[in-house]
Amino acid sequence: MSQPDSATVYLVGAGPGAVDLLTVRAARLLARAQVVFHDALVNPEILALAPQAQMVAVGKRSGRHSTAQRFINKQLVDAAQKYQIIVRLKGGDPMLFGRAQEEISALTQAGITIEIVPGVSAAFAASAQLQCSLSQRALARSVVFATPRQAKGSVDNTWARAVAAADTAVLYMAAGQADQVSAALIHEGVPGERTVAIVENVSLAETRCRICTVASMAHAAKNLGSGPAVVMIGQVYAHLRQVMESEWTEQSTRLGLGSA
Amino acid sequence: MSQPDSATVYLVGAGPGAVDLLTVRAARLLARAQVVFHDALVNPEILALAPQAQMVAVGKRSGRHSTAQRFINKQLVDAAQKYQIIVRLKGGDPMLFGRAQEEISALTQAGITIEIVPGVSAAFAASAQLQCSLSQRALARSVVFATPRQAKGSVDNTWARAVAAADTAVLYMAAGQADQVSAALIHEGVPGERTVAIVENVSLAETRCRICTVASMAHAAKNLGSGPAVVMIGQVYAHLRQVMESEWTEQSTRLGLGSA
Repeated sequence: MSQPDSATVYLVGAGPGAVDLLTVRAARLLARAQVVFHDALVNPEILALAPQAQMVAVGKRSGRHSTAQRFINKQLVDAAQKYQIIVRLKGGDPMLFGRAQEEISALTQAGITIEIVPGVSAAFAASAQLQCSLSQRALARSVVFATPRQAKGSVDNTWARAVAAADTAVLYMAAGQADQVSAALIHEGVPGERTVAIVENVSLAETRCRICTVASMAHAAKNLGSGPAVVMIGQVYAHLRQVMESEWTEQSTRLGLGSA
Repeated sequence: MSQPDSATVYLVGAGPGAVDLLTVRAARLLARAQVVFHDALVNPEILALAPQAQMVAVGKRSGRHSTAQRFINKQLVDAAQKYQIIVRLKGGDPMLFGRAQEEISALTQAGITIEIVPGVSAAFAASAQLQCSLSQRALARSVVFATPRQAKGSVDNTWARAVAAADTAVLYMAAGQADQVSAALIHEGVPGERTVAIVENVSLAETRCRICTVASMAHAAKNLGSGPAVVMIGQVYAHLRQVMESEWTEQSTRLGLGSA
């Protein structure tokens, strides 16, 4: 049994999906970890980088948050009594829509050392696939990342106002409720004809991209699979409509995209 | 001389600074590159991952953009006639404030294959250092990334309106003009007392963080060094004021920060 007071919990960004889009620091930590707590959606190839570690799935997808989160917090605190190198893997970057603060607070209150290893968020990997920059000179100088996910019973459209005010927007955890998202955006003044690129399973072999508009995104999202998706909105994507129309395109042809 | 038609130009995110915050894919590409075009600010330890490659500094900092950019574009196109594996390294992620689109367009027009490797943007590494999540449940559901840098002679405050509409904001290339930034934000309705964290030399040993407010950021920025800095604004940083007051804190003590 190791010294509990030398334990460190590493909150580590697992990146967008592809195993080689982990950071070098994350890969090295996984090779040393004694236990790895991971979300349900993490690529098994990433977990294979820690064959020596005990694996604990702390799966949660939509819904049932607070109970699950409190239980995860407790598991992390308990692990620090037993192990020295504890890795908590989170998809993308831990500090963007990863509920990291709840785990940081619980660990800090328990006096446990924390280190955070940043990761590549899905928006950046999706931009790389599309070969379309989030910011562009004279066209996009502000980029907002938002999530429409709401606490139960609340109706708070500040996220939609933030999207309306920025030049480019990336929505996380939005594709599953595309009809409400579309309506909220149009209500806040986002033009219905603005181009939307929905990219599913970013950076993985099975990635797919659908090009549509703010007004048509609910229809487009019906053809999505069950993988996580980012919804990207902005004038910077307008040229993709001519190239792709509304067809699905496979990553194997680099999404079939040339330049504008 | 290699086959020009098999050349690929890789636009690669160099990450926030620390060499082990490169992605695994980026590190492997550097080890295979025949030539590396890099910005002036890239960490020499990152360049050392490509000892076999010819190094071409395409340094540019503020000002004199379009001429320099056209020359970089030409250098990349020319390199594809001579080499097969060409790496264009860009700080952070290439698709956020990296002027990637101008290089993508030039290369695409010349019929040259491009691949883009995403990277960790400075905002994420700064959040990891501060142990403060960009998004937080019930407090911050939208995060905007913006730059106040303007084309010469233009006065365009849409970036400031986007900041005012989002819960958390990260400004790139802003610390050097903190007085105008402060004035523009207050003009667009951002509360002067909102907390600002300015993080310089993110992820490097010499990193420093200054906590101030939107109203006081011009004063705070005077004590910055010459390294690149991100300016982070939002209620999520409010607790840092009690912890740090307005003192510089070294990364060696993890910025001296506990939880809220």
